[in-house]
Amino acid sequence: MDEKITSRENAKIKYACRLSSGAAFRRSEGRFLAEGRKLCPELARGAQLETLFYTESAMAKCPELADLPGEHYLVEDHVADKLADVGTHQGVFGVFRTPVHGLDEVKTGGRYLALERVQDPGNVGTLLRSAAAFGFDGVILSDGCASVYAPKTLRASMGAAVRIPVIEAGAMPDAIARLREKGITCLAAALYKSQPLSAAQASYPGGVCVVIGSEGQGLTDATIAACTSTVRIPMTDRVESLNAGIAGSILLWHFREESL
Amino acid sequence: MDEKITSRENAKIKYACRLSSGAAFRRSEGRFLAEGRKLCPELARGAQLETLFYTESAMAKCPELADLPGEHYLVEDHVADKLADVGTHQGVFGVFRTPVHGLDEVKTGGRYLALERVQDPGNVGTLLRSAAAFGFDGVILSDGCASVYAPKTLRASMGAAVRIPVIEAGAMPDAIARLREKGITCLAAALYKSQPLSAAQASYPGGVCVVIGSEGQGLTDATIAACTSTVRIPMTDRVESLNAGIAGSILLWHFREESL
Repeated sequence: MDEKITSRENAKIKYACRLSSGAAFRRSEGRFLAEGRKLCPELARGAQLETLFYTESAMAKCPELADLPGEHYLVEDHVADKLADVGTHQGVFGVFRTPVHGLDEVKTGGRYLALERVQDPGNVGTLLRSAAAFGFDGVILSDGCASVYAPKTLRASMGAAVRIPVIEAGAMPDAIARLREKGITCLAAALYKSQPLSAAQASYPGGVCVVIGSEGQGLTDATIAACTSTVRIPMTDRVESLNAGIAGSILLWHFREESL
Repeated sequence: MDEKITSRENAKIKYACRLSSGAAFRRSEGRFLAEGRKLCPELARGAQLETLFYTESAMAKCPELADLPGEHYLVEDHVADKLADVGTHQGVFGVFRTPVHGLDEVKTGGRYLALERVQDPGNVGTLLRSAAAFGFDGVILSDGCASVYAPKTLRASMGAAVRIPVIEAGAMPDAIARLREKGITCLAAALYKSQPLSAAQASYPGGVCVVIGSEGQGLTDATIAACTSTVRIPMTDRVESLNAGIAGSILLWHFREESL
């Protein structure tokens, strides 16, 4: 029988809540908190699960949770409510070790997605999911992007955050320069002075990196200048723009793994 | 100087609130309410604006609102708060006539998107926006879809709801039969027993209709059987599925207007 936590002031609960709410704390601890009956087992396939918290009713609905690794704690409903970042939750929470990846892992011939200051957690999560779906080898994030391991991003990515290497790279122009040194073609998504996607090659022997900017401002001039060339999704004049997650996913589809 | 509304119990305000909250009332009245400094002028380009409500601060920020057609009313802030469906709003609201379109307008050689029981307003709005962007001629909705003219859908569609004909068609298999009578190839998006999109033609001389089902269940068996054939977006095994708005938009991109 697992130990039961009855107090919202329990040290393990307070630690998990800090992981949930603070990106800086997540980074310094190298851990994150996720919530969900389906999401936690999914994440456990790609990241080390250290601690699992569950309510009695969650375990009754989903007894296979008992097979997950790590320390397990039964928590009372009011404790689970504290762990949740939103009102509704499924009573299952996990503390995971954050997988760490660096630019040194980027390899010639690979497919990469780079995000500069994409601030919406839903867009970052969706793009991670699409990149994993279309056979990309990694996702590079600049400063100012929504945190990959924040509760909202984890939900939108549906576990993809641990199925594809995520590299936090600081300033984007420097990261682009590193990729180009390895022979990777870096394509900036930009509306102006750009080549329509329908005219772009589907693959590049040295590898390709699709570079996407923030929802409001797009890419910085420095990043566009650092890239090999620019590309845009051609549209009719009936809309001004596409949603960033949609536009990015269409680019990822175009540059997908050849076998798909 | 426009008349000023100071009471939340004003008949015009109560009428607008009913339009905002009830799909059945919107349908019986043939009108809808939209909110937004950018969205209202955008919608006014494609739908008849009957009544505009604005706060003093909204007009100060955006004096060109005065050029919009229809009756104009200045409303006090607490009245504007009642008109808004969410906490934050921009103080600009419009009552519009709903454009009405029918299946009889569907034409051979055209491009159509059909949605069966797509329940998330964000997905319906996003797909309308992508369909308008890629030169589609109309969107057909079955019973059980999120309302196109609900506040959340209007925000996600960014005005596309009035830039592309929207046809509310009831049961989807009957609608598909009508389209096929006109020589339109109807492609059901389905994960199983389907052809990968990468192997599908990009255009069909008789026209094409992309048919997308609900987020959880996909298309009904009756709709799949009514379609010409099925198509799927090939993916790696690293994800289980794509977001419905993303998957649909990639299909729309594939079957886009040839000039794009």
